[in-house]
Amino acid sequence: MQYYVDGFRGGDPDIKNATAKRRDRSEFAPLPEKVDVMIAGCGPAGLCLAAQLSQFPEISTMIVDPTPGPIEKGKADGINTRTMEMFQAFGFADKIKRESYWVNQTNFWMPDPEKPANIKRIGRVQDVADDSSEMPHILINQARIHELFLEVMKNSSTRLEPDYSWSIVDLEVDTTTDEYPVTVTLENNGINAGERKTVRANYVVGCDGARSNVRKAIGGELHGDAAHQAWGVMDILANTDFPDVRQKCLITSAHEGNVLILPREGGYLFRMYVELDKLNPDERVANRNFTIDDLIAGANRIMQPYSIDVKEVAWWSIYEIGHRMTDRFDDVPPGEANSRTPRVFTAGDACHTHSPKAGQGMNVSMQDTFNLGWKLVHVLQGRAAPGLLHSYSAERWAEAKRLVDTDHEWARIMSAPAGESVLDNGDEPRFMRQFKANLEFTGGLAVKYGESALVGLATHQALAKGEEIGRRFHSAPVVRLADARQMQLGHVAEADTRWRIYAFAGKNDSSAPGSAIHKLADWLHTDSNSPVVQFTGRDEDIDGLIDLRAVFQQTFDQLAYEDMPALLCPTKGKLGLQDHEKVFCVDHKGLGDIFDMRGINREQGCMIVVRPDQYIAQVLPLDDYQTLADFFAGIYKPTAR
Amino acid sequence: MQYYVDGFRGGDPDIKNATAKRRDRSEFAPLPEKVDVMIAGCGPAGLCLAAQLSQFPEISTMIVDPTPGPIEKGKADGINTRTMEMFQAFGFADKIKRESYWVNQTNFWMPDPEKPANIKRIGRVQDVADDSSEMPHILINQARIHELFLEVMKNSSTRLEPDYSWSIVDLEVDTTTDEYPVTVTLENNGINAGERKTVRANYVVGCDGARSNVRKAIGGELHGDAAHQAWGVMDILANTDFPDVRQKCLITSAHEGNVLILPREGGYLFRMYVELDKLNPDERVANRNFTIDDLIAGANRIMQPYSIDVKEVAWWSIYEIGHRMTDRFDDVPPGEANSRTPRVFTAGDACHTHSPKAGQGMNVSMQDTFNLGWKLVHVLQGRAAPGLLHSYSAERWAEAKRLVDTDHEWARIMSAPAGESVLDNGDEPRFMRQFKANLEFTGGLAVKYGESALVGLATHQALAKGEEIGRRFHSAPVVRLADARQMQLGHVAEADTRWRIYAFAGKNDSSAPGSAIHKLADWLHTDSNSPVVQFTGRDEDIDGLIDLRAVFQQTFDQLAYEDMPALLCPTKGKLGLQDHEKVFCVDHKGLGDIFDMRGINREQGCMIVVRPDQYIAQVLPLDDYQTLADFFAGIYKPTAR
Ligand SMILES: Cc1cc2nc3c(=O)[nH]c(=O)nc-3n(C[C@H](O)[C@H](O)[C@H](O)COP(=O)(O)OP(=O)(O)OC[C@H]3O[C@@H](n4cnc5c(N)ncnc54)[C@H](O)[C@@H]3O)c2cc1C
Ligand SMILES: Cc1cc2nc3c(=O)[nH]c(=O)nc-3n(C[C@H](O)[C@H](O)[C@H](O)COP(=O)(O)OP(=O)(O)OC[C@H]3O[C@@H](n4cnc5c(N)ncnc54)[C@H](O)[C@@H]3O)c2cc1C
Repeated sequence: MQYYVDGFRGGDPDIKNATAKRRDRSEFAPLPEKVDVMIAGCGPAGLCLAAQLSQFPEISTMIVDPTPGPIEKGKADGINTRTMEMFQAFGFADKIKRESYWVNQTNFWMPDPEKPANIKRIGRVQDVADDSSEMPHILINQARIHELFLEVMKNSSTRLEPDYSWSIVDLEVDTTTDEYPVTVTLENNGINAGERKTVRANYVVGCDGARSNVRKAIGGELHGDAAHQAWGVMDILANTDFPDVRQKCLITSAHEGNVLILPREGGYLFRMYVELDKLNPDERVANRNFTIDDLIAGANRIMQPYSIDVKEVAWWSIYEIGHRMTDRFDDVPPGEANSRTPRVFTAGDACHTHSPKAGQGMNVSMQDTFNLGWKLVHVLQGRAAPGLLHSYSAERWAEAKRLVDTDHEWARIMSAPAGESVLDNGDEPRFMRQFKANLEFTGGLAVKYGESALVGLATHQALAKGEEIGRRFHSAPVVRLADARQMQLGHVAEADTRWRIYAFAGKNDSSAPGSAIHKLADWLHTDSNSPVVQFTGRDEDIDGLIDLRAVFQQTFDQLAYEDMPALLCPTKGKLGLQDHEKVFCVDHKGLGDIFDMRGINREQGCMIVVRPDQYIAQVLPLDDYQTLADFFAGIYKPTAR
Repeated sequence: MQYYVDGFRGGDPDIKNATAKRRDRSEFAPLPEKVDVMIAGCGPAGLCLAAQLSQFPEISTMIVDPTPGPIEKGKADGINTRTMEMFQAFGFADKIKRESYWVNQTNFWMPDPEKPANIKRIGRVQDVADDSSEMPHILINQARIHELFLEVMKNSSTRLEPDYSWSIVDLEVDTTTDEYPVTVTLENNGINAGERKTVRANYVVGCDGARSNVRKAIGGELHGDAAHQAWGVMDILANTDFPDVRQKCLITSAHEGNVLILPREGGYLFRMYVELDKLNPDERVANRNFTIDDLIAGANRIMQPYSIDVKEVAWWSIYEIGHRMTDRFDDVPPGEANSRTPRVFTAGDACHTHSPKAGQGMNVSMQDTFNLGWKLVHVLQGRAAPGLLHSYSAERWAEAKRLVDTDHEWARIMSAPAGESVLDNGDEPRFMRQFKANLEFTGGLAVKYGESALVGLATHQALAKGEEIGRRFHSAPVVRLADARQMQLGHVAEADTRWRIYAFAGKNDSSAPGSAIHKLADWLHTDSNSPVVQFTGRDEDIDGLIDLRAVFQQTFDQLAYEDMPALLCPTKGKLGLQDHEKVFCVDHKGLGDIFDMRGINREQGCMIVVRPDQYIAQVLPLDDYQTLADFFAGIYKPTAR
């Protein structure tokens, strides 16, 4: 964690200095008339975007929600490893790791063949495969995630806070202007209920959930099917003789249906998803009048011979499985992509919904806006052409589609009667096999963006076999040269919309002048074609857009800091202080060699270009300056630095 | 981290429900007339104690300081591994780990034999030996430590806050009463400067620094010597061509003296201790009028051929080395220990001071009050006889003595001219050897309390060779049975004044009825001689005083939760919820086997009784019920549970 670059300042380093330009939030201050970005909805999608945008004093953001304040409980609770990697970049992964339940094992229970009325444990699966991520898969109250994002916003230089009790009712896009072209109609849901205001925005992002008004305003419709299967969900404080209650369990009874157990934060609370009756094709779950007692009774029937003695119900809900999505996640009609750029987006449940049981909803919603956030920032900063924004719908739609499909399949398997689900090949039931096969997917680690202006060709993939182009950069242990600190290389990435280039040195390269690393750094630093030279802002640190880091094959005591090129120890900030955190070595204490772990070519080394949202854009030879130059030139506009 | 045991509640789990009994802190509320504990001074010693006491709604605490508010910078910055282990118990170790500089290596620089005017790196030493602690040795601004304790206080049920702008001027102890026998005279140092108030207290703890009024009031005097060596200290933001500026360095020049470099939090700041001139015997450092420019110039002379270009001075000070301590840390005169118990204590710099360069001052101050805290709580709760309080001075005086002696020796070596310091045996200079030999000591890990009512005999030490009686319980990796979570066993210990008994199972013991573990748990749970039965409060959870944890030699998938005795899965809290976090297994993922790592006898197993301040009181066979019973009976009074 780096701070004090602009001078010493006491106190919590997560609290940034407030910008003078921030909005007046005093009691009777009016709503702003114009904002750069208007976000609808304080769910995970909206807050993740707001937290990202709040870091930029030059961008004005407004986020509205019809509710009077933050939710306290309920809704989703699963944070997969990929999302934890993102939380690391936002700075609160450690906090969540401390507070949350960690899913280490998933246990499977089925009817006992000898006494089918009873359930019996038939197997365990390690939930996060070794070295699939440095992060755990965790479970925690969705409300707490909201709180942590709200804290990031409040601590940011803009001190961004939501405008609660306001919702978007409609919006209109004026395609003839570039000056705040979206007129948003807000409605008050609080003490002045019904009052309307208009605010003009450069961009609007509808993170307003499954009944999204923003989606409707841009003509989006959710397509897909409902499974006509009612599931109940309850977060309970309860005692039980069921021995695995503190492990994630998938439980299938012979005749009473299925239960999913998710232990939760704090050591006592747990969630149960309980299968209730199938619905008729034209039936809505609301009409069945399920009560919490139905849920508890259902759970007890399914869990035989074990029982659940509920002491407190923290939250419960009845859930109808539906897997649906819109055709596009922005306001550009098909065929018009060449003539206009998006002004309105939808994200999260507003454009795709799925069953809760694969634990994806909250994760994928945040990943949507993490994909969008940096693109909006760079366009609003004027450094990228607005065409960049087309890539949001393109990239996230394909992911959502894959998610809905997989999720659909998984829900079908989970809801199948035991007989149908336990298939053919003997010892391992089908849903256990499927579960294992899905692990990378449910971890959020299978996401792969296709080739585009933002994702290069696989030409040089062989230089880094374990870092696949289009997928997230997979962290591994390293040691920082300057202070010999063991750490995760991936943790240098903050949610600051910067690109990272990880330059892995070839054998014997210790950054002597003339070595591949030294030459790459010098070229980036000084060549007129270099993207650093071309696209870094005038008032910005040299690593303001592209952050070069080097990784050497030596251990920290075999390298000389003095040999590093200037770009690897740049001076920064108001005071012009040297940054010592750009150079890394292989771990010398048994955690593994990053070159081996990620299949980096030891002879040649390589560079890995990683997007601000942590996805790999390029794997290139260390001297492929031209491809690097062309790649960034395809996205950014030259600045006169 | 366990929470929700009394019901679900949204928000930050570190924020406890406020007790109704807490003090009225509204603007014009008067100072209290009586308090259980009056603490003088908001330094590390005072705040550590206040944070501990603030957890107990039944105890009223007041903490005063003449300053108008918390300090912002300066003073000490080293937190050794032992203190980090304590911070873990207070819940903020993760936060500090994230923010701070980690000392991984210490580098030694000496005159270059080929060009003695220049310094040259002659060696590196790994700063925290492998498996000496699971915690790093870190450096961070002392003010930040204060803040984190203040946060613990503010988040506690009592919402304890300091009374700034008040100091203790004097106090008097009435030895004829047990009802608030200490009358404390406070003086206002703020807007009503000079105003005096008296507050009566059951106990007073003087954490009021080297010029302690509390010490004076109980007739304490600092003895020892001043080294008549002036050192300057500066926290600076600076650039340099010195390659090791982000590592801790001890630098000895040929003729210009010595420098100590301590890199600091945030990646840019670092501290330099710079040797200045020797003082004459009767000279005070204040009379020499050293300026920050003298410090910077001195540093530059010593660091030749390197130079330091200072951009900002965050803080600086001139320091005179003195190693001094008082004869006792409480108000009981020699020879009167049998006739009265202590009412007034001193802690930290108030009773022992030392040179800053071994980085001990802040650490040992907090360890003082961590030793005192639980004793005060148990006496005030009425569960322990006041005689327990004698052990504070006894235990901490011996430690302080050892510290002052070691520190003295170290300062002498550090200040010796290069010629004298580099001794005889060739390649390794004397101070580097001494530094290595001191590492366990400077880590705070060498503390060993002697045999007493609180520390048993070493009779059965062979059952756990790596967990020495009298020293701190040394954590190791385990896996929690209920949820298969990898964790540090030592991290079950919170700063909650509870005792822990770690019961290590013998070979093949899987807690079947009749096994040694099962029998121990049952005896503790039900036998009329058991300390759990005898000393647990009526309104308290069964683990309110003594927290039994079991560790098995099997891995988590080889044990059945169903076999555990009731005391290992007790029901707790208002709702009577089952606690699932008492049972542990050996790590199955390559972090090491705790039985091997700590030399636990595999055949027999053993129990390790650990004090609330994390020091080992007893190592006993699993069936040595009598010693266990006698031990606790020597401290606590029976309650009718
Ligand atoms: C009642 C309920 C129960 C759920 N239970 C589970 C579960 O058990 N497991 C699981 O995995 N997932 C569950 N989910 C789904 C999960 O919470 C979502 O997938 C996730 O929250 C999606 O995040 P989001 O930000 O896209 O949308 P949401 O979290 O739905 O947030 C949308 C936000 O937009 C606000 N909003 C609505 N209309 C407007 C408007 N016109 N203008 C401005 N703001 C508006 C809403 O108040 C809300 O705060 C549940 C969702 C709901 C609603
Ligand atoms: C100026 C200065 C510089 C230091 N620099 C270093 C350094 O560079 N390196 C290092 O390792 N250590 C340094 N130390 C020492 C280190 O800070 C102490 O060892 C450590 O703070 C001891 O903690 P403490 O709580 O015992 O006392 P302190 O931190 O000294 O706290 C004592 C507190 O008591 C308050 N107080 C004083 N009188 C009264 C009274 N009558 N009534 C109530 N409150 C009172 C004071 O305002 C202060 O807040 C320095 C100390 C000082 C004072």
